[in-house]
Amino acid sequence: MADIKALTFDVFGTVVDWRSSVAREAEAILGPKGYALDWPVFADRWRALYVPAMAQVSQGVRPFVILDDLHRENLLTLLREDGVGDLTQGEIDHLNHAWWRLDPWPDVTAGLVRLKQRFILATLSNGNIALMVNMAKRASLPWDVILGAEVSRAYKPTPEAYDRTAAFLQLEASECMMVAAHASDLRAAATRGFRTAYVHRPDEYGPAGAQRAWPTDGFDFAVSSFIELADRLEL
Amino acid sequence: MADIKALTFDVFGTVVDWRSSVAREAEAILGPKGYALDWPVFADRWRALYVPAMAQVSQGVRPFVILDDLHRENLLTLLREDGVGDLTQGEIDHLNHAWWRLDPWPDVTAGLVRLKQRFILATLSNGNIALMVNMAKRASLPWDVILGAEVSRAYKPTPEAYDRTAAFLQLEASECMMVAAHASDLRAAATRGFRTAYVHRPDEYGPAGAQRAWPTDGFDFAVSSFIELADRLEL
Repeated sequence: MADIKALTFDVFGTVVDWRSSVAREAEAILGPKGYALDWPVFADRWRALYVPAMAQVSQGVRPFVILDDLHRENLLTLLREDGVGDLTQGEIDHLNHAWWRLDPWPDVTAGLVRLKQRFILATLSNGNIALMVNMAKRASLPWDVILGAEVSRAYKPTPEAYDRTAAFLQLEASECMMVAAHASDLRAAATRGFRTAYVHRPDEYGPAGAQRAWPTDGFDFAVSSFIELADRLEL
Repeated sequence: MADIKALTFDVFGTVVDWRSSVAREAEAILGPKGYALDWPVFADRWRALYVPAMAQVSQGVRPFVILDDLHRENLLTLLREDGVGDLTQGEIDHLNHAWWRLDPWPDVTAGLVRLKQRFILATLSNGNIALMVNMAKRASLPWDVILGAEVSRAYKPTPEAYDRTAAFLQLEASECMMVAAHASDLRAAATRGFRTAYVHRPDEYGPAGAQRAWPTDGFDFAVSSFIELADRLEL
C-alpha cells in the first residue's frame, strides 16, 4: 500500500447522496407548480435511465456525449411520463443541474481533507467537468484534479476509463486506488490493475431501500466512511 | 465584471517563477556530477525551445503531444549541447520534472485562497495534467479544476485553447477572465471574448532580465500581484 499515490473516486453514491438531493431539488422546482410526485422515486427513476444511456455511448451506438446531456434527455422522458409540460428551457436546465447540487455524505469533507495530505485526490466519475466543478464548489470537496468520463472520453466501467485516468496522472495503475460504493466499479478497476477501497453506503437508495450487503470480494479496503479510510491509511 | 464566474490562469511566469526554480533543480542534479553551467541561463535556454516546439503541434506539423514530452525532447537537445552524456533515463526524467517543482511567486497562494471564495479557479496553461497536479500539490495551489492544453488538446494561443476551456466549464467566454503575465496570451484570450487581467511579473527573466514595461492594452485589470487582484475584485 506504500506505493499508492492517487485515490480515484467514484462520486454519485460514494461521495454524494444523489437520491435525497435530487428529490429535494425536484420538489423545490416542481412542487410550487402544483405537481405532487413521489420525489425520491422521481430521483430513482431518473437514475435508472443513466446506465442504459451511457451504454449506448460505451457500445458505440452513439458518439461520446457528456452526462449533463444524457441526464437532460432522460429528464425530458420523465417529464413526459409525468405530464409535466409547462417548464421553460431555463427551468429544465435548472432542474437538470440538480445533479450539480448534491450533498456529500456527512463523513466526506473531513475525510477528504485528511486523505489529501498524502494522496492526489482525483474524481473518476461518469459526471462531466462542469458538473464536478460546480458540485465541488458548493460542497467544498477538495479535489486535486477533475478527471473521469469527459476528460477520458470513456464511461466506466470500460477499461479506457481507468487506463486513461492513470495515464493522465502518469501513474501505474497499481499506484492508483479506486474508491467506490459499488463493487462493479471496483471490480472493473481491479481488472485494470487499480487498488480498491470499498465504502459502504447502505442508504444510497434511501433508508427503506434494498438491504445492501457488504461485498465478499477481496478488496484492499472495505470501510464504512471516508474517516475510517483515513484511519486505515494512518492519516 | 459581476458576470465573471471563472478565472483562468496562465501558470508559467504568472503563477510560478519557473526560471529560478528550474535553475535550482538543474544545479541540484547536474552540479554534483561536476557540471558547472550558468544555471539561470540553462533555464532560459530550455524555456526558449518551448514556443517553437509547441508551434509544431499548433501548425499541424506533428500530432498533439503533452508539454512534458516537448520539455524532454528539448532537454535532450540542451544536454547534447552542453556535453552532458552520463545521465540515466531516470535522472533525465527527474530533471525534466523540474517543471513539476516550480515555486509560486510570494503573493500567489494567499491571493488564490481569496479569489477561490467567489470564482472557479482553473488552470489554462500549456502544461499537462500531471505537471499541473504535482506542481499544485507541492506548492499548495488551490485550483478547482485543471484545464489547459492536455484537456483541450490545443496549445495557447490557438483559439481552441480558450474556446474549449470555456465550453468545458459551460460558461460564456465573457464569464471567464484570463489571468496572465503575458500580453500576448491576454490578447489571444480577448479575441475569443474572455475578460483579461494582466499581472506584472517583471522578474520572470530574472532581476537582471530585460526591463518589462507595463502593456498599454486596455485590459480589464492590470495589477502587480494576486493580492492586488483580490483587492480590486473586492474579495
